Amino acid sequence: MTQIPTTRVEAEALDTADPLGPVRALFQLDPELIYLDGHSLGAAPAAALEAASNAAADEWARGLIRSWNDAGWFDLPLRVGDQIARIIGAKAGEVIVTDSVSVNLFKLAGAALPLARTNIVIVEEDDFPTDQYIAQGLAGLADARFERVPAGTGPDRAAATGGILILSAVNYRTAAVLEMAPVDQAVTSGGGRVVWDLSHAGGVLNLDLSSIQMAAGCTYKYLCGGPGAPAYIYARRDIQESLLSPLPGWMGHARPFAFDPSYAPAPGITRFANGTPPILSLRALGAGLSVFETVTMADVEAKARALGDLVCERTHALGLPIISPTGEDPRGGHVTVCHEDGYGIVQALIARRIIPDFRAPDAIRFGLAPLPLSWVEVWDAMAALGDILETAAYKDPKFQVRATVT
Amino acid sequence: MTQIPTTRVEAEALDTADPLGPVRALFQLDPELIYLDGHSLGAAPAAALEAASNAAADEWARGLIRSWNDAGWFDLPLRVGDQIARIIGAKAGEVIVTDSVSVNLFKLAGAALPLARTNIVIVEEDDFPTDQYIAQGLAGLADARFERVPAGTGPDRAAATGGILILSAVNYRTAAVLEMAPVDQAVTSGGGRVVWDLSHAGGVLNLDLSSIQMAAGCTYKYLCGGPGAPAYIYARRDIQESLLSPLPGWMGHARPFAFDPSYAPAPGITRFANGTPPILSLRALGAGLSVFETVTMADVEAKARALGDLVCERTHALGLPIISPTGEDPRGGHVTVCHEDGYGIVQALIARRIIPDFRAPDAIRFGLAPLPLSWVEVWDAMAALGDILETAAYKDPKFQVRATVT
Repeated sequence: MTQIPTTRVEAEALDTADPLGPVRALFQLDPELIYLDGHSLGAAPAAALEAASNAAADEWARGLIRSWNDAGWFDLPLRVGDQIARIIGAKAGEVIVTDSVSVNLFKLAGAALPLARTNIVIVEEDDFPTDQYIAQGLAGLADARFERVPAGTGPDRAAATGGILILSAVNYRTAAVLEMAPVDQAVTSGGGRVVWDLSHAGGVLNLDLSSIQMAAGCTYKYLCGGPGAPAYIYARRDIQESLLSPLPGWMGHARPFAFDPSYAPAPGITRFANGTPPILSLRALGAGLSVFETVTMADVEAKARALGDLVCERTHALGLPIISPTGEDPRGGHVTVCHEDGYGIVQALIARRIIPDFRAPDAIRFGLAPLPLSWVEVWDAMAALGDILETAAYKDPKFQVRATVT
Repeated sequence: MTQIPTTRVEAEALDTADPLGPVRALFQLDPELIYLDGHSLGAAPAAALEAASNAAADEWARGLIRSWNDAGWFDLPLRVGDQIARIIGAKAGEVIVTDSVSVNLFKLAGAALPLARTNIVIVEEDDFPTDQYIAQGLAGLADARFERVPAGTGPDRAAATGGILILSAVNYRTAAVLEMAPVDQAVTSGGGRVVWDLSHAGGVLNLDLSSIQMAAGCTYKYLCGGPGAPAYIYARRDIQESLLSPLPGWMGHARPFAFDPSYAPAPGITRFANGTPPILSLRALGAGLSVFETVTMADVEAKARALGDLVCERTHALGLPIISPTGEDPRGGHVTVCHEDGYGIVQALIARRIIPDFRAPDAIRFGLAPLPLSWVEVWDAMAALGDILETAAYKDPKFQVRATVT
């Protein structure tokens, strides 16, 4: 386990020894900025920027329709899916890139409904809002019962009722981590199914998905795919043939160019493809994932944990309540602390070119994306936070002006 | 009405007089290529290529999370929707860019079901496959009856049963055009609703959507948004508040950053927003639409018709059966002819750097996108087609090798 630095010199030494250190050079970073929001929108790999440009200028403008074959657009969702599979602990052929997380949760939960013992869709009341809305929308359309249950009670309820549970592996607010295997097994034993949301887990934790059956996740956070990059669906090999997407777009057809009037699902994970995917965004994602090529996810998780431990130690010393797990409890890639002037504190940090994020009413989230971030950056950010609190700089009226969005 | 040219010199004269002629310079075209596939994937506006690059390098890499506000990402689906509204004959605030056509047809048909007199989803058997699959998927999930009816009988059936009809305004295979207003009115009078697919209509016909209620369409054909650019949803202002998307992603929430556990639809068309949209693709689309800024859709439709008339006249003279409307019947932006060696003919054309498309078993589609295409190009393409047929060049074995895709 990495020792937490107690001086800036120690932080520098950790950077020198960091096995992930060289990966930082693969990103196009602003050297004047400390970016602690990679849990919301990941930093940009240089390869992704180049790929977006090339996909537009070479593949689209020059190649035109021929690029579906010549540039391999057609298989891209599956090939990029295989790249993601390696990173999230799945096997080749178990992941496809398609749609958004919202749409994918709908597709999976809709596909899982016929497999469940009862027609119930369950979410926990503190889970990410879109997961709750999608569960509600699906239940309404499918004439299923919708249940919003207290935080932490979803698994027991799904096991008891045999319904579908949509559940985040890492809480978006606190970064608390669920142990997925026993939950998936308990719910399945009770006749239900779990649809996991891996948005805050994929690309930062060292996952093994072999013990869960299906999941969706986003690619623009730790996977660094770019703003709104298309999301993914995971379905374990042994259950793929039992799942039928309720949104059977033509690219998930067994013979997409036969123009059959009747739907026949493609074999395997390809059945979850849908309409034509956004190629420019998909290309950027595929190229950006190259930053993961030389790393082990054990190293990635360990660094996220260690950087987070540093944030916990420093914010605790500053007297800020931490709502993220500390001590031995597992934690995702961000640390959330509370302060009644959280908004002003975040604005004061931004004025010093340090970017965390704020979630109303009082939460400050520090994202610790392990690939683009250095120890010294986190050290300096915590030093600036200490200064802002000590001098009450956040009380400056200019830091109280609310932006319209985020 | 434009006179059809009878010589190449006359075609050149038409180019000189063409009010749309100057727009051609806004595209990044290969001068050695005649591209007759703009009904499948539109040519690339130079502004779109630049926007994709800038969105990646400036807005993402440099701006990072701040670009949601600073670069206006958050409102982009609505602003680009307003740009599309002007082109497809809708009003500002009636169009939003989101998801794919497949997903959007599902959302609209699902939202329309509670408004219909009966729980039936109808498609015509020659409509675009994805429309049929989505109708089938929706009906399965919503426990509605699914009916696939003979071509041309959908409106009567929907009017008689009071169900939901998903229907293309322009047939993807023949380019036959439906008169939407009387169909929409008849079906609605019978208690049903029509969800229109405008994929082959938007950006090439001079539409007026005020007589229809809801539609989805794609942006990568005549709207030149780039491969897999996100699609759009149109809902007429007066019915927007009666529609609830069955896929209520967080960006369609009334207060997306309040993180309410319960869904509350955003006012107006924004309720059809969903998960986070693919910004790079969306930026390219928004910038690319600038090619429409100086044109009238009456001119666009007239040129598509006239170029198509030239193709009809020349292919008729070559003895090829035309399955697209001719004479006085309205027609979309492509002309489809048949030949038992259609595949080889298309390959022979491609070898001469002329790109139409082939649809099994025997259809050749010539796309006549009015903005990037010149009269001389279409003239030359028809001359090459004549030569290939006369010399039977298409029988060369090298033109019989089938590619795996398209």
